[in-house]
Amino acid sequence: MGQGNLYIISAPSGAGKSSLISELLKQDQKGKMMVSISHTTREPRPGEIDGVHYHFVSHDEFEALIEQEAFLEYAKVFGGNYYGTSLTAIQENLAKGIDVFLDIDWQGAQQIREKISSVKSIFILPPSLEELRKRLIGRGQDSEDVIEKRMSKAVSEISHYDEYDYVVVNDAFEQALADIYHILNAERLTVEYQQIQNLRLLQQLLVK
Amino acid sequence: MGQGNLYIISAPSGAGKSSLISELLKQDQKGKMMVSISHTTREPRPGEIDGVHYHFVSHDEFEALIEQEAFLEYAKVFGGNYYGTSLTAIQENLAKGIDVFLDIDWQGAQQIREKISSVKSIFILPPSLEELRKRLIGRGQDSEDVIEKRMSKAVSEISHYDEYDYVVVNDAFEQALADIYHILNAERLTVEYQQIQNLRLLQQLLVK
Repeated sequence: MGQGNLYIISAPSGAGKSSLISELLKQDQKGKMMVSISHTTREPRPGEIDGVHYHFVSHDEFEALIEQEAFLEYAKVFGGNYYGTSLTAIQENLAKGIDVFLDIDWQGAQQIREKISSVKSIFILPPSLEELRKRLIGRGQDSEDVIEKRMSKAVSEISHYDEYDYVVVNDAFEQALADIYHILNAERLTVEYQQIQNLRLLQQLLVK
Repeated sequence: MGQGNLYIISAPSGAGKSSLISELLKQDQKGKMMVSISHTTREPRPGEIDGVHYHFVSHDEFEALIEQEAFLEYAKVFGGNYYGTSLTAIQENLAKGIDVFLDIDWQGAQQIREKISSVKSIFILPPSLEELRKRLIGRGQDSEDVIEKRMSKAVSEISHYDEYDYVVVNDAFEQALADIYHILNAERLTVEYQQIQNLRLLQQLLVK
């Protein structure tokens, strides 16, 4: 079975990250993947469920968790809301052989990399700025004003793409999904991974 | 299309490296893969064709090529024969977007890594020593004495597995083949690769 790998998945809003992660989890029949559920102080969007999409907590609760050092990373973002990733559950699931995805932005990614050097990171790009704008408008959630803010934030997020290990362009959804599978599979073939995964085989092959 | 990647593929004799490479090339409808043809001074085995499996040359010819610095790497191996990789053709093919495989041993791999830091390397392992011995006997090419020498050489080759980027265990052939595809695909998604491959997209996304 072997240890699971920890992945950071980041993208500008509208690049399709959430749909890709949803589809990965939906196709994951063997329970070998999960997404770490973040804490946030922002209001739930329509359809979002506490404990499924996020742990929705108050500002006071979030700040109490910061003091308890419960977070692997956290950030106060545009609008004043907090987002954070709790260490609990992540390491348990990795030990069970489950790949754990952290759905966080570049700031969170930087904090995680400092603490967990073995983390792998994937950045999802939209195929063009026009397509990104179209997708944000298509969601129908945001006013024109908010969309412009999201576009600026997207460009700023994208400027950090080169801090990531992998870049996936989400032009055709199925191709982007296949790309992520290639990454997850290849990362279970690296020498660092195989040294742990196939320890007994290597010991047998090298004793002579 | 993008630049091709250069791969070292090494394995102990009998791990199934040649069959895996043959199958990759056979399935490669789009001409996106090739194996670099090495020079050697050893005698052709039954069925081996000059210019296809190897460039078969004499000792004198090989040593003349060494003096001309034609080799990216070369080695004199067990039995006194030379094996070497000529730089010609490799870079041309990489530029055409073709992934080029170097089918060489750990000594050649070390020389290549020193000269081309971007090279990626894959080590193929047999699933057990018993299976390796069975495969060597099954080839029916070698005497018992030669098989024992090959087994010792195999263990010595395997001891260098940790100098490689990836390790593929060739237990089930189809799975090992799929593993190699995952690696080839994932290596075209690394940030280093995408920065070149998707340069225009990144420039467009970041100009605002």
